[in-house]
Amino acid sequence: MDAGPFEQFLSTPEMAGVFGAPAFVQAMLDFEAALAQAQAAEGLLTPEVAAAIAGACRVQALDVPALLAASGRAGSLAIPLVAQLKAAVARHDAQAAKQVHLGATSQDAIDTGLVLCTRRALALVDRDLSALAAALLRLADRHGAAPVLARTLMQPASVTSFGFKVAAHWLQPLLRAQQRLHEAGAAALQLQLGGAVGTLAQMGGKGPAVRSRTAAALSLADPGGTWHTARDEWLRLGCELGLLAGTLGKLARDWSLMGQGEIAEIAEPGGEGRGGSTAMAHKRNPVAAMLALAAAQRAPQRVAALLQGMVQEHERALGGWQAELAEWSGLWLAVHGGLKPLAEAAAGLQVDEARMRQNIAAFEARDAMFDAALAQPARERADELLQRLRPQAAALAAAQPWAAWLP
Amino acid sequence: MDAGPFEQFLSTPEMAGVFGAPAFVQAMLDFEAALAQAQAAEGLLTPEVAAAIAGACRVQALDVPALLAASGRAGSLAIPLVAQLKAAVARHDAQAAKQVHLGATSQDAIDTGLVLCTRRALALVDRDLSALAAALLRLADRHGAAPVLARTLMQPASVTSFGFKVAAHWLQPLLRAQQRLHEAGAAALQLQLGGAVGTLAQMGGKGPAVRSRTAAALSLADPGGTWHTARDEWLRLGCELGLLAGTLGKLARDWSLMGQGEIAEIAEPGGEGRGGSTAMAHKRNPVAAMLALAAAQRAPQRVAALLQGMVQEHERALGGWQAELAEWSGLWLAVHGGLKPLAEAAAGLQVDEARMRQNIAAFEARDAMFDAALAQPARERADELLQRLRPQAAALAAAQPWAAWLP
Amino acid sequence: MDAGPFEQFLSTPEMAGVFGAPAFVQAMLDFEAALAQAQAAEGLLTPEVAAAIAGACRVQALDVPALLAASGRAGSLAIPLVAQLKAAVARHDAQAAKQVHLGATSQDAIDTGLVLCTRRALALVDRDLSALAAALLRLADRHGAAPVLARTLMQPASVTSFGFKVAAHWLQPLLRAQQRLHEAGAAALQLQLGGAVGTLAQMGGKGPAVRSRTAAALSLADPGGTWHTARDEWLRLGCELGLLAGTLGKLARDWSLMGQGEIAEIAEPGGEGRGGSTAMAHKRNPVAAMLALAAAQRAPQRVAALLQGMVQEHERALGGWQAELAEWSGLWLAVHGGLKPLAEAAAGLQVDEARMRQNIAAFEARDAMFDAALAQPARERADELLQRLRPQAAALAAAQPWAAWLP
Amino acid sequence: MDAGPFEQFLSTPEMAGVFGAPAFVQAMLDFEAALAQAQAAEGLLTPEVAAAIAGACRVQALDVPALLAASGRAGSLAIPLVAQLKAAVARHDAQAAKQVHLGATSQDAIDTGLVLCTRRALALVDRDLSALAAALLRLADRHGAAPVLARTLMQPASVTSFGFKVAAHWLQPLLRAQQRLHEAGAAALQLQLGGAVGTLAQMGGKGPAVRSRTAAALSLADPGGTWHTARDEWLRLGCELGLLAGTLGKLARDWSLMGQGEIAEIAEPGGEGRGGSTAMAHKRNPVAAMLALAAAQRAPQRVAALLQGMVQEHERALGGWQAELAEWSGLWLAVHGGLKPLAEAAAGLQVDEARMRQNIAAFEARDAMFDAALAQPARERADELLQRLRPQAAALAAAQPWAAWLP
Repeated sequence: MDAGPFEQFLSTPEMAGVFGAPAFVQAMLDFEAALAQAQAAEGLLTPEVAAAIAGACRVQALDVPALLAASGRAGSLAIPLVAQLKAAVARHDAQAAKQVHLGATSQDAIDTGLVLCTRRALALVDRDLSALAAALLRLADRHGAAPVLARTLMQPASVTSFGFKVAAHWLQPLLRAQQRLHEAGAAALQLQLGGAVGTLAQMGGKGPAVRSRTAAALSLADPGGTWHTARDEWLRLGCELGLLAGTLGKLARDWSLMGQGEIAEIAEPGGEGRGGSTAMAHKRNPVAAMLALAAAQRAPQRVAALLQGMVQEHERALGGWQAELAEWSGLWLAVHGGLKPLAEAAAGLQVDEARMRQNIAAFEARDAMFDAALAQPARERADELLQRLRPQAAALAAAQPWAAWLP
Repeated sequence: MDAGPFEQFLSTPEMAGVFGAPAFVQAMLDFEAALAQAQAAEGLLTPEVAAAIAGACRVQALDVPALLAASGRAGSLAIPLVAQLKAAVARHDAQAAKQVHLGATSQDAIDTGLVLCTRRALALVDRDLSALAAALLRLADRHGAAPVLARTLMQPASVTSFGFKVAAHWLQPLLRAQQRLHEAGAAALQLQLGGAVGTLAQMGGKGPAVRSRTAAALSLADPGGTWHTARDEWLRLGCELGLLAGTLGKLARDWSLMGQGEIAEIAEPGGEGRGGSTAMAHKRNPVAAMLALAAAQRAPQRVAALLQGMVQEHERALGGWQAELAEWSGLWLAVHGGLKPLAEAAAGLQVDEARMRQNIAAFEARDAMFDAALAQPARERADELLQRLRPQAAALAAAQPWAAWLP
Repeated sequence: MDAGPFEQFLSTPEMAGVFGAPAFVQAMLDFEAALAQAQAAEGLLTPEVAAAIAGACRVQALDVPALLAASGRAGSLAIPLVAQLKAAVARHDAQAAKQVHLGATSQDAIDTGLVLCTRRALALVDRDLSALAAALLRLADRHGAAPVLARTLMQPASVTSFGFKVAAHWLQPLLRAQQRLHEAGAAALQLQLGGAVGTLAQMGGKGPAVRSRTAAALSLADPGGTWHTARDEWLRLGCELGLLAGTLGKLARDWSLMGQGEIAEIAEPGGEGRGGSTAMAHKRNPVAAMLALAAAQRAPQRVAALLQGMVQEHERALGGWQAELAEWSGLWLAVHGGLKPLAEAAAGLQVDEARMRQNIAAFEARDAMFDAALAQPARERADELLQRLRPQAAALAAAQPWAAWLP
Repeated sequence: MDAGPFEQFLSTPEMAGVFGAPAFVQAMLDFEAALAQAQAAEGLLTPEVAAAIAGACRVQALDVPALLAASGRAGSLAIPLVAQLKAAVARHDAQAAKQVHLGATSQDAIDTGLVLCTRRALALVDRDLSALAAALLRLADRHGAAPVLARTLMQPASVTSFGFKVAAHWLQPLLRAQQRLHEAGAAALQLQLGGAVGTLAQMGGKGPAVRSRTAAALSLADPGGTWHTARDEWLRLGCELGLLAGTLGKLARDWSLMGQGEIAEIAEPGGEGRGGSTAMAHKRNPVAAMLALAAAQRAPQRVAALLQGMVQEHERALGGWQAELAEWSGLWLAVHGGLKPLAEAAAGLQVDEARMRQNIAAFEARDAMFDAALAQPARERADELLQRLRPQAAALAAAQPWAAWLP
């Protein structure tokens, strides 16, 4: 089944791969393998059984389209997964097949699978945030001193400096977003393992130890419990994506306004196949801004759907959790679809300082507030700020908490 | 690129096909072919040129993955389409290739293509609404007289009849939804053709006639103008989908409550591969209700994103319109993902009248409001209502305004 | 309790009055009075009892703050209303007091009360839509021929006429919105009367007749049943408000872009206390556009909350219906807060045709698409369109379906 | 202007007071007073002028209704505030009046005013979170060992313990929410002071020092810059409210399900005026759950509107920021409207352990998964968890970061 042309248009192939069916199915299999091995280490399975199970946990061995086709009717993506995995194991070891997914529940495999995919998604977002931040710092270096009109409520208001716009309006919230993503990601990337109703009852006294070993094997945090229906730490990460989309949208809105033909202070880079028009040969459209604005329109609704889904029934929700899965991946697809083009465009953003000066000059006579000398305090504020932001950007870029999982 | 396992889990393959890349690209090509032929009829092209263009308008002749891959950078799905179509035409007729897409703009092809896909989507939804309505009428026939607890604010309140629940709470709003979809669909299924800025300026005085002929060729309404940035009639159809999702969600919520193990008044049909559990062999889960509840959680957010996107800039929006495309198709995928399973489950819904009576009996001693005789006025109200709803359901099912386009 | 400064800032005193506590309480009392009189006409009450009840149905006789204070704990706005009304009646006629609200339920009074308030809200919106449409028609008369840059994806694209912008982008969707409001309002303004669980069981065989008489007395449609949990016709009206907010937001976005200091093609009217700045004496801010843009950002979320609330439990929802009440009134407050200022500003909008020509001239050399002669087809399209829109606007303005209820 | 009966019904008088007009106007005045005194300390004003300004900064001295009435037309709540404050100062010192609001902009006063109100709102929420957590701990103490059906996908699934439900599903996410609110609140409660365009240009070199002193005087953090258009830290706090609403909604959903008449495992406390019915004397409705479910339906949409508003134009947004103000206060009103009743009801929640056992017994014969002995691992998991949660709850309750500002 095809993603539909519109999601592809507005996202990136990288992120689509991260949440694609093969990747997600493999991630669920990684959970099953780690679980079996942890159970063997705790004596719940023999090492041979665990090896037989783990050896079968390759997506290539399953029929993914059949799995997906069966999922709706089954009411779960994990039910057909476990059935196929059992069949695959049984081809080599009928006894081992009975021990697949021992004491676990569908949601354990699905949530953990999604966590593993999300770690890769975070790696992509983190990489491109660093790239965008670096490009913005270069813009501040090259053009920061240029005076530019400051506009409030869509009217020229006074004069600021381009460096202040870059530092205070675009870069600073971006670095805060990156910082908060590091924190929220660390809290959210946890194993899910609770068994049928969250109590690990089917693993006897070994449950917590199995949970701990499975988490370690997958390099995930051990939640010390279950989060089947308590989605707050997970969705806090989703909220951070929503905040990031808003920050990117603000930058894109500014670009689109400064890039208007009549204002022409900046332009996205051109190039083959970029931002043309079927009707108007002369045009160069700000496509990175367009994609980021589309993302900023879509992401808040994904966040709202995720929050709405928190009202979950008892030990596993009917509808709310299942909707969350699709909204979650949709959120990442949307946001990366806005982030990556901005990072690329920022690296080649064309800045016309002369035009900035002309635009000020057109208003200078009207009011003392348009005196170009007012760019000076803006430059000072920007310098103070950049002194703090530069090392912060460097530290964040160096941290790369998930770089090992870059797809 | 793959749709992601979660959208597939929560939607239907039929609807995914309707909005899939091949179908949408072919729909844009249908627009281009109809346009060329209409222009030939108005003397803007020679019949030979139009024939050369129309002959190339087959999705099999294009490289759809390349088209999609180029779309983000181009900022449009139509720019690479027109480029590929020109190249395909040029292989046979270099002169004709220059006349592809004459006087039209990207949005003309994209919006009209989406309208054509949406007509098929409407055909599916309409078909399954009729099926669900018919199944509910059968339930009312078979079990309508049964008394059942009425519950308000999640507490037993008094007694009603199962027929009243079916007729007043489930069926009547469903038929209204179908009726309004017929109306909103008729208004929304319009050609988009305005050229670069909506004025058809590049077709000289022939613009309106070309528009009229193109619409007729595609069996679409001629809007008598353009709706590039005035999306209200289009999105009113989207709102109707949102209302339908809510109506389905209410039915599904009732099913999920009546089907609780402790209440057990109804049960979704079972069967191979349906509603099982990886952890609990005894369970039968209400998966149709689950899918409809998931849809009802997702659809409102799609509607909100569509409404938010109405704030479009000038003659073509930056971001708002593009986001609309993805939210639009996502809305249909979500709603059909809830509707179809409900229609299937309603046909086999198990109703336990004895249990309904027992549940009333447990409260009878508490208050006169639980006298089973109170089912009698409910039966009368239901009968009055069903007398009106039966012919309405029959008329709606017979109308089938889009059956010719069922995929 | 005070509305909070922010809702007041973004709405109008008129609409706040329509949904204010005294108006809503009186509307519930109007329901109770009409119900008693209808029951008397059907012989369920004596005329004296009905007169005693109806005579007490004046908001001045109740303690509205106490009613509101008790509502949360009661879980209903109608429970303390009925209690206070009974006490008021009992002061004159203790027997009559026992018959207050006979056979009705809280939701009957609350929903019907809200319907009565909404009729007034519709009257306000309809009045101001007519005013805005008339002002736009005058703008088209005065300045329609002026050529103006057409801009797509935030870039100058070609030339159109100001009249085409007014007619096709602003006026036509507005008139469609008004037309659809007339239709949706007619369907939504229905009595709610179903009794405890929707079956009118407590009125014996007289229920339908009482419902019919009560509806007639309030000049509301008789739904021929109940809509306690089937909110689709009601919320379709809410969706129309959402669509209207989007249409207003598009107009406001265009105004804000055309009014930018660097473009200066239009300006909102100035005047004492209008659009100033605490920091910049020279500024005149586009406050009507600001309020409409704020409304367009808020309304979609109200619509989403309303749609989400449709997933109602059994015979009366727990949470979903109650949330609807507040979201509903908030939607009307938000939309009127955007509509009314636009209608006022449109009447005095300043249009600078010379600046429009200069802005075109700055691009003329770049591409043939900027030839001012391209305004001619735009003028022709606008003329065709205005010929259809003028009589439509006149008919809609004359219809005034709810003018009798203007507050 | 009145808040409308529905917001009052669904919120609390305390929170309405926090964001009411007098409180907000006083908060803006507190900003103006602190600014004047900081400017005097830096030599920008004389001490006499500062004293004259600060002395006039009392809401009682202003005409709040007139201020609000003028705000829409002005496009700002601060413009009429500053005008009235200047007039009030001028009555005593005409020279001082000219120095009111020196170098500041509307948004500085409005944002800082809203921050000050929000600190009180946080104090209320924090207080009631501690109360709810304490009540839940008492429930775990008293009834934690009781076995209870665990239900997944709305079907009985196995057995857990009531203590595990309380600890893992309800309490743990609540304490995490409180912890994150402490963090997010600390980051969000910052002074806003940037002047016309964020650069403090009108205060010469003294700007940063004035900012620092003003922040200290108001016991707010100095942001070291401005956040006029970079709303991420502010809105992250809003996201936390959204997450909290979801956590409360989950608890309320469980209560509403466990409290169904047919299941009857828990009941909200009764009492005079609580949870009755106008139609059914026998009923006791779960009104705290109702209010929390209403909040959980409303809050996600407020969050979405806030996120949508982040796409702000240039140095101050047109529409997006203004909408934020109303959505922000609406979010707090909604969430506290759900939290406080839950805290009260939790303190008196009736738990029927016998009924829990009966409900299990009805399923025991069906499957080994319903063996009541399965409550034992649940009890162990709950004990482990409670050992961690008890000190966490105590520490959070003791922290009271904003208790000094409890209204």
